[in-house]
Formats: sequence, C-alpha cells, structure tokens
Amino acid sequence: MSTPLCLHYAPDNASLCVRLALEELGQPYTTQLVGRSARAQRSPAYLALNPNGLIPVLETPQGPMFETAAILIWLADTYGALMPQPADPARAHALQWMVWLSNTLHPALRMMFCPKQYTDADIDTFRDFTRQTVRQKLTLLNDATHADWLDADSPSIMGCYLGPMLRWATLYGQTLAPGELANWPRLYDFAKRQEARPAASRAAKAEGLGPTPFSAPGPCQPTEGSAL
Amino acid sequence: MSTPLCLHYAPDNASLCVRLALEELGQPYTTQLVGRSARAQRSPAYLALNPNGLIPVLETPQGPMFETAAILIWLADTYGALMPQPADPARAHALQWMVWLSNTLHPALRMMFCPKQYTDADIDTFRDFTRQTVRQKLTLLNDATHADWLDADSPSIMGCYLGPMLRWATLYGQTLAPGELANWPRLYDFAKRQEARPAASRAAKAEGLGPTPFSAPGPCQPTEGSAL
Repeated sequence: MSTPLCLHYAPDNASLCVRLALEELGQPYTTQLVGRSARAQRSPAYLALNPNGLIPVLETPQGPMFETAAILIWLADTYGALMPQPADPARAHALQWMVWLSNTLHPALRMMFCPKQYTDADIDTFRDFTRQTVRQKLTLLNDATHADWLDADSPSIMGCYLGPMLRWATLYGQTLAPGELANWPRLYDFAKRQEARPAASRAAKAEGLGPTPFSAPGPCQPTEGSAL
Repeated sequence: MSTPLCLHYAPDNASLCVRLALEELGQPYTTQLVGRSARAQRSPAYLALNPNGLIPVLETPQGPMFETAAILIWLADTYGALMPQPADPARAHALQWMVWLSNTLHPALRMMFCPKQYTDADIDTFRDFTRQTVRQKLTLLNDATHADWLDADSPSIMGCYLGPMLRWATLYGQTLAPGELANWPRLYDFAKRQEARPAASRAAKAEGLGPTPFSAPGPCQPTEGSAL
C-alpha cells in the first residue's frame, strides 16, 4: 500500500483496539493524538473525518474510516489475518461476535462511562441498572459456544476489541469492582493471555497502560494526551 | 451450498433486514416463525441458537448465526453482492456505515422500543431524551459524506438494514411522528426508492407491511405471528 495508515487516537480510548490489531499485524502506522482535554474530537477538522466526534479514525488508502469494529474487520480482510477470511467456514461466527462486541457489550459499557449521553435522570440509579446489564453480557460471553477465539492462543480482532473493554470495565464508570473480573473465569483467563502477547506489551507501553492492562489494570499514565 | 438457509423470524422484527437481503440476492431460503406472543425467543431451543434471545437467527452452512449486521455482511461476502467486496476501494466506507447502523442507530431505536431494558426510571422522560438522540443520528446520516449507498439505485446491505429502521422509527416507541421522516429529505427519498424495489415488495407481502413500508408505514398485518 502506498498511503501509510494513520491512527487518530487518545490514550486508553477505543483507538487502543485498533492499535492492538496494527501491532499484531506488524503493519507500519503513524499516530495522531486527538487532544480530548481541548475537545479536539469535536473540532471541524476532526468532524470532517468522523461526524460522530468519536475516536478512533483510521486513515487508509481507501480514505478515512470510523467505527472500531469496521476498522478491525477492514484490517483483517485487507491483511488477511486476525479473522477467518470470507471463504473460511469459521467466518460466520467470527463476524457474529465482532458485531456483538460492537453493538451489545460496547454500548452497555458506554452507558456506564458516559451516562449523561443516555439519560438526564439520576446517574447513580442509571448506572445501578446498567451495571446489571453489563454483568449479564459478560456472563453470556463467558458461557458462549462458537467463540473459540476466546480460548485461542492466536490473536484475533475479536480479542483486540475485548481486551480493552475488560480493562475499561474495571477502571471506568464504576462498572466492575477491582478484581471482580475473576468472577468470569473464561474472560479473566482470556485477559491474562491477551496481555502476555508482545503486541499488547507494545501497545501498553505506547499508551501507559501498565503491566497487566486487561486482567488487573491500573490508571493510564500516558506520555502524551489524557485518558479522561 | 448444500445446506439451505433458514431464517428464524418474526414479522416486522430485525429479521426483516435479513429477509430483504435474501430477496435482493435471490437466494432460496426457508423461514421459521419465532412466536413472540409465546416468548419463543426465550425458549431453551432458541437460546441454543442465540443466547441473547433476540431475532433473527440465520441457519447457514457454517452453522446458526445471530446479529443482523453480521448476517448481512456474511451474506454479502458469501454471495458476492450488495456490498463492495474486500478488494474494492469502496469497502472501508461500506463497513463503516454497516457498523454505525448496528451500534449507533439501532441501539438508539431499541431504547425507544424497549425502554424498560435500559432504565427503571420514568419511561416518558427516558424516551424524551432518547428521541433527541435518534433525531441527531438521523441528521448525521442524512448529511453524511462517503455514504453513496444512500443515494444509489442499486441495493445494498446497508439499505436493507436502514429501510426497516426508518419504518420502525415511525411505527414504534413514539419515536417519530407520522410524516416526520420527511424532515430528513435524503433519508425520505431513500425510503421511497427502497420500498419501490421488487425485493421490498416481496418482503412486505410476506410480512404484511403494506404498500409504503418505509416512507409512510402503516401497522403490520402479518399472515402468521405478531409484530408486537
């Protein structure tokens, strides 16, 4: 590819999922910090890339694209890795879980992290309700069939998406208590396996995520930008 | 393919998006009504197909799969139609909008249709807030760049997903007032173009959706099952 990939990112934001995939793929890429403290994601220049005002955007040879799951599927298909390809009999279930992560688990977490985007009623009450939803979704995934990627030693875009979400669930929005992730043993084992990968170590170093970023995360300490 | 496709559906449910795509593809398929009045989507047999207890499921030669957007992408890739294929330069933006429809517009509509799944506070207050979110999302899509499928005469899985969502927004959850869709002229024109397609007519007949199912929908009058 002639045009280099450029990831518009903020530390510990959804862009982390894309960074993990890029590191797993071993593809060269550049990064562009989106300064959240200055609300750069709402600037006209950024909104021209993503009218949702959300991070990430990946600049690709096919133009800038948004939506984490879309970027991940595009990367997997373009570089022929991290996901069964269209002719592979395992493709159907991989797509199924990618979409589920994107439209079920991720929105439930966003309701915890950004409750004021979803209600003008009492935040604590809303979070108490939504926290139960998150726990139900984690249980569903923990017990899922046709989700071999959860137990695999090989990387996947589903894993690149899930690892950061498990991190955020412990760190942000009072979603899970510290250590609570161990209540979902399959997910907890996944988190430990995922963070032991060299690609995860590189991403963790780049964004200041600490030594156990998914299974037992500590506060993000980035070298540039802010996680909040 | 040796195994026939079987769509587990309920009238005017998310399965309608998949039915539209199957009709556009001209693929043979069978249907299996999921009796919502008997809560068949929560039966052990159905939960074995989709642990989320949601409709649709498509039985494929790769096994049963859930998640509307995943099924649509799988169909497009498997039959080589309704979406730019992986090597096509238009693939990135098609994926982007597919995911956006699935994780942004669809969840906002679900909050209107099934508010008790999202809050135990006052439903009218929650809907008043969420209705504004839906309107913002419709405006974003109406004004979107890199969304040529919205204006195209040719069908797409994005169109198969959006048409029913515009219908539901007018019919369910007090989301839009009758006729309000015309406030988003690009989406309204899309709805009229989409419902004029023979595939849409066949789907509308199968599920009792009436003559203008997307631009000016009336109540669903199915020959079997219930839309509510």
